[in-house]
Amino acid sequence: MPRPETVASGPGSRALVVDLIRSAGPISRVELVAATGLTQPTISNIVRHLLESGVIREGGRTASTGGKPRTLLEINPSALFAVGAQLGFESMTFVAAGVGGGTIARQLVDGAALEDPELVVERLADQFRTFISTAGLPVETVAGVAVVVPGPLAARDGTMFRSPTLRRWERFPLLDRLVARLPVPVLLDNDAAAAAVGEFWTRRVARTESFAAVYMGTGIGAGVVLDGALHRGASSNAAELGHVSIDADGVVCSCGNTGCVERYAAPAAVLAEARTASDAFNDLGLEWSENATGPDFDRLARAAVNGHDAARVLIERSAERLAAAIVSFNNVLDLDRIVLAGPSFAVAGSLYVRVIRARIDRSSFARQAHETHVEIAANPRDSAAIGAAALVLQSSVAPGHGPTLER
Amino acid sequence: MPRPETVASGPGSRALVVDLIRSAGPISRVELVAATGLTQPTISNIVRHLLESGVIREGGRTASTGGKPRTLLEINPSALFAVGAQLGFESMTFVAAGVGGGTIARQLVDGAALEDPELVVERLADQFRTFISTAGLPVETVAGVAVVVPGPLAARDGTMFRSPTLRRWERFPLLDRLVARLPVPVLLDNDAAAAAVGEFWTRRVARTESFAAVYMGTGIGAGVVLDGALHRGASSNAAELGHVSIDADGVVCSCGNTGCVERYAAPAAVLAEARTASDAFNDLGLEWSENATGPDFDRLARAAVNGHDAARVLIERSAERLAAAIVSFNNVLDLDRIVLAGPSFAVAGSLYVRVIRARIDRSSFARQAHETHVEIAANPRDSAAIGAAALVLQSSVAPGHGPTLER
Repeated sequence: MPRPETVASGPGSRALVVDLIRSAGPISRVELVAATGLTQPTISNIVRHLLESGVIREGGRTASTGGKPRTLLEINPSALFAVGAQLGFESMTFVAAGVGGGTIARQLVDGAALEDPELVVERLADQFRTFISTAGLPVETVAGVAVVVPGPLAARDGTMFRSPTLRRWERFPLLDRLVARLPVPVLLDNDAAAAAVGEFWTRRVARTESFAAVYMGTGIGAGVVLDGALHRGASSNAAELGHVSIDADGVVCSCGNTGCVERYAAPAAVLAEARTASDAFNDLGLEWSENATGPDFDRLARAAVNGHDAARVLIERSAERLAAAIVSFNNVLDLDRIVLAGPSFAVAGSLYVRVIRARIDRSSFARQAHETHVEIAANPRDSAAIGAAALVLQSSVAPGHGPTLER
Repeated sequence: MPRPETVASGPGSRALVVDLIRSAGPISRVELVAATGLTQPTISNIVRHLLESGVIREGGRTASTGGKPRTLLEINPSALFAVGAQLGFESMTFVAAGVGGGTIARQLVDGAALEDPELVVERLADQFRTFISTAGLPVETVAGVAVVVPGPLAARDGTMFRSPTLRRWERFPLLDRLVARLPVPVLLDNDAAAAAVGEFWTRRVARTESFAAVYMGTGIGAGVVLDGALHRGASSNAAELGHVSIDADGVVCSCGNTGCVERYAAPAAVLAEARTASDAFNDLGLEWSENATGPDFDRLARAAVNGHDAARVLIERSAERLAAAIVSFNNVLDLDRIVLAGPSFAVAGSLYVRVIRARIDRSSFARQAHETHVEIAANPRDSAAIGAAALVLQSSVAPGHGPTLER
């Protein structure tokens, strides 16, 4: 039996200290010792490291109560920046965030589409330089950039091993190429996982909450945060909500399972249903593109929100199916809070929230014991990029939890 | 935002120290300081507490290497015993275990059936006294008894709030009555959760593994162990595998969801299917009891294992449906290992393992990244009772994790 990780000396303690300073600060070293149970030398080491890296700063002293006044520590709101880059089929989104988590710049450019991966990485690197320059961020103040992609990653070598969205990218050594071309440390992760961390961070969700973000872009995914940490599972493939089945005898999915909800509820499935009754949607000017489903799905979603009957039926059906999978997902995890994030919730998120909330209230196993809150992200389109920036900040203050920054 | 729990002063550290002594012992205090990162005074406090409670003992000293020889600590294999009691419809199983986790006594008596809960608790208390007396365990050496039941518990007041198996027990103040009648501290938990802890403990599964026990008795449940701790969810209702849907348009379950796998794969469902073609099963002498499904299910399972075609078709269909739900469950959790436990796997467990393993290998999302091992419990009938005993041991060395012993 392998030895458990040490409790106090690992990166978990550094993350805990930063989180305490963020949530309870300004706070003194003595109070940190009391709140963490870590020794005074351990706290001193962690604090020194965080001061040196500019993550926190000293700010004021406690009022004297007879004893020696104590120096207070607080988050340094501006010394360090992080960039998140979401690489999708249709668009590439950059955001920059300060340590406090607030977004300070955003830029949207063309996505990967069917372009050669090598050229896309080159373009991403160029756009990154333009982006930080436009945002007025000297490169030496950028702690790193996290690139997040749709689809599962082989954690060790940073390649995608299956992506219905970016097929050309399977087995492409993405992390290596990014490290070679970008002037700052790089981290690579899944978009849904990033969105969960971002929502957890920016909403200031309590560590004790069982929390998930449901992410719908081209596909459907999720990220789960338990005890304040992303639950990644045995191989970083946990929370694959899109591949929770809603019909064991249903259609065979490319993943090998049957009846995966992604095949019934994601934008491509909704548009395929619309196409079988295309007369009802003549007024919407749909383009029926097979690759870029986003614009058509947004048109359909907008029509649904505006009272277009046929569109509303389709969107509500998608929501009902997604809700059915979320009930199973919730019966496995018993969650306090679910946030809907991702570009496909940007237009009709309110419809999805209503349907999913109603089904959870009606069908979740634990509904008599407690409520599972269902909410929409403040900015569903940018959730993954914002979350990516949060991953950089987490990784730079507590390397070793999840993917690390590579240079 | 509430403050995070302290790292070093909580019961987690006590559990960590016991686990280190169990897995790496004999070990000295100095080595414990190094391995945990906890301070010397904290380790001294924990060790003193564990020595006083008889969980560990001092055993020998390190060889002198110039410095002062150090006293070594080891688990005390016999000073403390725990009793697990599984209370089911058909039977009540008692087991006693030492700190090492080994079962030292076992007894099976009649279950709750349709009897008045008050009388069943009285009988359970009488049986407990008989059991420890027969096993030769003085009452003062018994750290406590954990009673485990089918169905979810309201964690705060120890009542069952829904149980398809023990309907008369809903809202019965079970924990209060047990505490009033039993002469040792009492803990109450769910049978599937207990089985997971028991399998994790007795198999010496590594803390780093993502682990689950799938539990099938009258109903279907599961327990999930992540980072060495039971994942209980927001309201102790996580891992409700029986209520993962395999058909969003399927039958309405008493839980409020549709298509719950329990309605398709559990013993009652299998027997209902058998009844619709009862001629094929005339040779098995089935009793068709509606309440006690166990004996008929065991007969059917035994026939399936022995090559009875009609029985085999039904058992394999049950296994396929259960496997479909387990694939969704695994796609949410990304597990390293799944163990099948519970009395309904006692006879045809090998058939279930084969079907479930094949479906996981074929359909699990992460199958290209890593294998999810599927195994059968060494003793499926006693898993929950053995796990209950493990819960007592955990709770007596680390109160505060999960339900606590009450007296």
